[in-house]
Amino acid sequence: MDTQPYRQRLEARMIDIAERVIAAEGIAAMQARRVAQEADCSVGTLYNVFGGLDGLVVAVNMRTLAALGEQLSATARGAEQGTLEQQLMALALAYRDFAVQQNRRWRALFEHKMEPGKPVPASYREAQASLFALVEAALRGVIADATERFSAARALFAAVHGIVTLALDNKLGGQDAAETERQVRFIVSAAARGLAARVMGSA
Amino acid sequence: MDTQPYRQRLEARMIDIAERVIAAEGIAAMQARRVAQEADCSVGTLYNVFGGLDGLVVAVNMRTLAALGEQLSATARGAEQGTLEQQLMALALAYRDFAVQQNRRWRALFEHKMEPGKPVPASYREAQASLFALVEAALRGVIADATERFSAARALFAAVHGIVTLALDNKLGGQDAAETERQVRFIVSAAARGLAARVMGSA
Repeated sequence: MDTQPYRQRLEARMIDIAERVIAAEGIAAMQARRVAQEADCSVGTLYNVFGGLDGLVVAVNMRTLAALGEQLSATARGAEQGTLEQQLMALALAYRDFAVQQNRRWRALFEHKMEPGKPVPASYREAQASLFALVEAALRGVIADATERFSAARALFAAVHGIVTLALDNKLGGQDAAETERQVRFIVSAAARGLAARVMGSA
Repeated sequence: MDTQPYRQRLEARMIDIAERVIAAEGIAAMQARRVAQEADCSVGTLYNVFGGLDGLVVAVNMRTLAALGEQLSATARGAEQGTLEQQLMALALAYRDFAVQQNRRWRALFEHKMEPGKPVPASYREAQASLFALVEAALRGVIADATERFSAARALFAAVHGIVTLALDNKLGGQDAAETERQVRFIVSAAARGLAARVMGSA
């Protein structure tokens, strides 16, 4: 008899449970025993299926990346007729929205640390790269070199991420949603103008 | 008899110990009992002096902010004859250097969360504001409005902070020091050019 379907169903059920725990209480509440109990299996089985709690959190984070990717892809499609600044701004604000609306799931992407010596799975890095590809596509008209575009996309992402993270953690004090949006708009607008100025300057 | 000097010495001793623990092992290793034991006082005294462990961590973080402030002030003085881009770049790279060299103390600034309902002390916000003032000073020539300058300085800081944090946490994978510097240089350069273009455009 083929046991694969059962194992797949069990795997999906454990990811569902873990996702619910993370969305409701955050990554600190994630415990192997709790997930195993709810999934009606042993902790040993959980470790067997995911190679440890790390693997289960990565599986949840893969879903979160996919959800973020869907939102950003739809945004990119809606903005593709716009200027560089409009395209980058739409992506930046969509990222901010996701961070606010899916706060705990979004946090888990950055709070999760792999056990020492364990690398993040290649599939996770590929999922990240497919999100950066959306920013790289928007930059194609102003940065011809692929390596430079790679760095620029990551720099723009990290810049917006930094503003959103410090705001949501209230790290700089008294920063409301309007102030956060002003900062996102400032950095994206300045960077887009700077990129445009560079293209004009080098023409 | 005046007991103030004893209390002040005890306070400084506890901050010294806490600072050493954070610099060597990180904020997760900070325990009231451990600090009190090393300072040769009771946990009750520690709570009495600092109003809780939170207060002691804030005291350490105030020292870290002061050290960062000294480094950034010296950088700003050294760059004040430069262009806007040179000034912002010098500050950004000095911030990156501090994060790398004082990694655990720097992390503690962002990892520390006050107990729920307890606000960060006003003196801490003032220390932060004095660091932002260095960036605001560099922006004076290109942003006349003080409110806009306030947001721009925080946006630029958060942008560089985002790049440095994601890099040091290895969140995007395979990012070496050279790649991190490329990203910092990209965002600062693009933003500085964008600001200059705006000034020219509105002239």
